[in-house]
Amino acid sequence: MEIITVEQKILKKNDEIATELRKKFDEANVLVINMVSSPGSGKTSIIERTLKIISPALSVGVIEGDIQTSLDAERIAQFNIPVAQIITNGTCHLEARMIEQAVNQLPLKDLDVLFIENVGNLVCPSSYYLGEHARVVIMSVTEGEDKPLKYPAMFSKSCVLLMNKIDLLPHIIFDIAKAKKFALKINPDLKIYETSCYDNTGIMQWCDWITNELKLRRCNSPS
Amino acid sequence: MEIITVEQKILKKNDEIATELRKKFDEANVLVINMVSSPGSGKTSIIERTLKIISPALSVGVIEGDIQTSLDAERIAQFNIPVAQIITNGTCHLEARMIEQAVNQLPLKDLDVLFIENVGNLVCPSSYYLGEHARVVIMSVTEGEDKPLKYPAMFSKSCVLLMNKIDLLPHIIFDIAKAKKFALKINPDLKIYETSCYDNTGIMQWCDWITNELKLRRCNSPS
Repeated sequence: MEIITVEQKILKKNDEIATELRKKFDEANVLVINMVSSPGSGKTSIIERTLKIISPALSVGVIEGDIQTSLDAERIAQFNIPVAQIITNGTCHLEARMIEQAVNQLPLKDLDVLFIENVGNLVCPSSYYLGEHARVVIMSVTEGEDKPLKYPAMFSKSCVLLMNKIDLLPHIIFDIAKAKKFALKINPDLKIYETSCYDNTGIMQWCDWITNELKLRRCNSPS
Repeated sequence: MEIITVEQKILKKNDEIATELRKKFDEANVLVINMVSSPGSGKTSIIERTLKIISPALSVGVIEGDIQTSLDAERIAQFNIPVAQIITNGTCHLEARMIEQAVNQLPLKDLDVLFIENVGNLVCPSSYYLGEHARVVIMSVTEGEDKPLKYPAMFSKSCVLLMNKIDLLPHIIFDIAKAKKFALKINPDLKIYETSCYDNTGIMQWCDWITNELKLRRCNSPS
């Protein structure tokens, strides 16, 4: 009982900070995308490929969330864009209070798009809203078709699914139609793109989604 | 402060139950192996391939941990061995109290080996001791070389690393020597096997590790 209360308090406090963050993001007119997945599904590689296409036409920033190491932030820093590193020191997800500190290191008002690369974990990050406009889940085809059914919270709270590493399809047993059916069973509104960071399949379509989303938000923006 | 105290209390209580479980496992003379990994690294497939080799010569039971669905337990049940399913309903790891309930459904005294397939999560299960004799971490080569550095707790608390899906090496950019170096940097005592569930590479060697471990424990057992 005590545990549940503490957990609820943590999530309530997190949501309050996230709601404030969302206001800040909207005021800065920046589209914020929270990238979530299992470890090694290709979040950093997808961000790298995306930057190659949308930057510098769009001004992009990245917040890198890791339990340990700044390896991913170092990869992204090579693009000469603003990057903030969060090292969670064992915490298995990013929380709004961590983002609050990280955004202070970024020129938020100069950005068009801000990617938040969450900790590689298909479970816990699903409970923590970070004030983002869109949550994007990445699933590698090497992980098997059943992942949406086994980790439903992450798929139900995302608006885009990047089915990644599809260049490996000829070498594995993976029924992509079945995987999509499972994902849409959990979330019928999920927009699905098949992607590969090896041959860039689907990366342009995914980038089009980002630029469209940005246009839509700016059209609807009161400012 | 309050949160930390509650967390410490939970972990302390977990360790107490796990220590009792360990006594129970030792009394039953059963080798208990806790299988941990990211989602989709191949835990269930490894168990399936292992069962084909070591069962029925050895009597094996399996505890399947999942957040949702009993898909994995259904796969294992086809081997006609005792299987207990734990559905954690959102909890991102198995805890000793869950194992305590699950073992009551199993003929513990008749078993030689008990596999516990943990929730697919490279972070949280590392904090929860389940009374096991060995923790085995599975890492798919598709996840990238840096996983041991980025998720060090799991690798430092495991005694075996199965580097899985190595049949995919010709199709990906993955430096296996580098990955092993990173794993051994985190844990110099880690025993590493390269495995594939497609062509059975390394499965026999991994099964030899199990049978040797079983012999060693029974030799050293006071009973």
